[in-house]
Amino acid sequence: MKKIKVNLGKRSYQIVIGDKISSQIGSLIKSLQLGEDALVITNSFLKKRFGLKLAGYLKKSGYTVKFEVVPDSEKSKSAKQVFRLIDRIGEYDVKRRLFIIALGGGVIGDLSGFVAAIYKRGVNYIQVPSTFLAQIDSAIGGKTAVDLSLGKNLVGAFYQPRLVLSDISVLLSLDKKQIRSGLAEAIKYGVIQDRQLFEFIEKNTAKIINLNQKALEYIVYRCSRIKAKIIQIDETETKGIRTILNYGHTIGHALETAGGYQVYSHGEAVALGMIAAARIARDLNLLDDKSCWRIKNLISKAGLPTSVRSINRDKLLNAISHDKKFIRGKNRFVLPVKIGKVIVREGIPLSIIKKSINSLMK
Amino acid sequence: MKKIKVNLGKRSYQIVIGDKISSQIGSLIKSLQLGEDALVITNSFLKKRFGLKLAGYLKKSGYTVKFEVVPDSEKSKSAKQVFRLIDRIGEYDVKRRLFIIALGGGVIGDLSGFVAAIYKRGVNYIQVPSTFLAQIDSAIGGKTAVDLSLGKNLVGAFYQPRLVLSDISVLLSLDKKQIRSGLAEAIKYGVIQDRQLFEFIEKNTAKIINLNQKALEYIVYRCSRIKAKIIQIDETETKGIRTILNYGHTIGHALETAGGYQVYSHGEAVALGMIAAARIARDLNLLDDKSCWRIKNLISKAGLPTSVRSINRDKLLNAISHDKKFIRGKNRFVLPVKIGKVIVREGIPLSIIKKSINSLMK
Repeated sequence: MKKIKVNLGKRSYQIVIGDKISSQIGSLIKSLQLGEDALVITNSFLKKRFGLKLAGYLKKSGYTVKFEVVPDSEKSKSAKQVFRLIDRIGEYDVKRRLFIIALGGGVIGDLSGFVAAIYKRGVNYIQVPSTFLAQIDSAIGGKTAVDLSLGKNLVGAFYQPRLVLSDISVLLSLDKKQIRSGLAEAIKYGVIQDRQLFEFIEKNTAKIINLNQKALEYIVYRCSRIKAKIIQIDETETKGIRTILNYGHTIGHALETAGGYQVYSHGEAVALGMIAAARIARDLNLLDDKSCWRIKNLISKAGLPTSVRSINRDKLLNAISHDKKFIRGKNRFVLPVKIGKVIVREGIPLSIIKKSINSLMK
Repeated sequence: MKKIKVNLGKRSYQIVIGDKISSQIGSLIKSLQLGEDALVITNSFLKKRFGLKLAGYLKKSGYTVKFEVVPDSEKSKSAKQVFRLIDRIGEYDVKRRLFIIALGGGVIGDLSGFVAAIYKRGVNYIQVPSTFLAQIDSAIGGKTAVDLSLGKNLVGAFYQPRLVLSDISVLLSLDKKQIRSGLAEAIKYGVIQDRQLFEFIEKNTAKIINLNQKALEYIVYRCSRIKAKIIQIDETETKGIRTILNYGHTIGHALETAGGYQVYSHGEAVALGMIAAARIARDLNLLDDKSCWRIKNLISKAGLPTSVRSINRDKLLNAISHDKKFIRGKNRFVLPVKIGKVIVREGIPLSIIKKSINSLMK
């Protein structure tokens, strides 16, 4: 079992990573004084697959456990779902000693974290991420949100969990598409901060895709460590440091938007965005040819797309210029300067952006 | 103009108090970098009475201004209103440089603060409290909330404003009932922390009720200073220090609940609660007879009720035992030990609570 501390003063917490560590949840949360009554927010698949077992461990340690099941879809990140959950929690929390366990991927983590943030001005919650992507990214850092019709994540809060419990064994039931989606973000961590991680993924791509437990654990550990470090410096994204986590996301988000969130998964879109940003960096003479090629090559090796299909070029360019990362009209890109280091650049000429888009469209 | 700093590290802000200081809003917010586009959340009366003038000052300083008007009622503190406002804000905030101005009493402050807390994980907001009660209490400290059908303030966040602008001239249109309601809380501050304030109110009761500007300004200043001090030590009510602000509120809230929020205003209920708590303190030999009498006498002089009418005794006792300040079955009271000092006591015998209730019922 590996532990990483996220140092945020009074809001500090640990990320605990290991195989089958869910069984130790009782002793892991004991000293945190979270409360006595656990409410597990999850979906019906995860409830059956892991939740009931988790509940057993909790009950053995003296906690009461209830479940709230939400549909397994981005649609669950709605205001309606938030208020349905809070009504249920209000009924359940008669003894005022409730805490929340978010058992799921990004959707359940974002939704449950937001509910925990606003119920009675904040109750304790822990994250038990069930996807590769959630373990290395969304479960860490306290970004919680729900969607409104006007936009994704339009409503939310920065509200830190009290513990992130990343049980590697939970990943072993994921399909290859989900693993690849997480792997795209792992490659991102390599490019922005960790050459050693990047090279590990280069050497062990097949092992990872085939769910080798040791390989997954290593990646979750390295990525969590980077995310923890960045959050410690820039908890609420005000210092521009957390921005480097957006490598690949400017064009990535535009691809998701232009495709109506139907064509590409988040990981696939980010993979394409990373290739495009690497090319922009190369065209600006910030990155050498070989590193640019290595990024694209690793993405390809991971089974992620390297060129764009079925998305209209103009729609994509339009989506890019409406991205929130375009501060007051100026575009902003996270650009690699070598494997393991990125810089943030504003005001990239449109001609260079278009050139990188065109090369994706080939 | 008087300024009080609320020291909360990165979340520090000033409370600015003075007569007609709204006209200086432009220079007061200039250095805060709140944004360029002000959205004023208020009610229709306040919009006409002060809002349009405030908008003029803001425009003169180069800000754009829009209004969102909400009904002047506790019913505005609803999830429905939150999402209506956020939809409007989303449409208005195309340039991503919006900030919120809460112009109103406790309801508008709580609602606007909560909207500011959750829109895009937090935007800047300032409080321009329009009631005596809001200036000395609710506008300071970042407690934001809305009501659900299951309970008042069931949903909320701790989210600090960037400035509290307490313009005393705004109070001059209040009716006597509103002034008395605020005065109850001012007396509370005197009892819990500030003997000098208590004695000032004793000597100047009539002046205050008759809206003497200097007297009001002195009280707003003294109370704001106490509230700021308490919040600095216990921002999120986790250390039990902010608890002392609940003097008079255990029985006060029960009176509001038992009366269905129709019989007593918040200030009236707190006034009765303070008398009851003083009697409990006296019966426990914590407070001398004379101080107990002075508290009741000042409440009476302020034109606030000193005995309970039209509320059923059993209903009241039942409401007391369901109060959230009863932690795990144990009751908890803030009890004065002299004018200017209180202690927190748990597990007060029911017989003593009943005796103080009975004396209120006479």
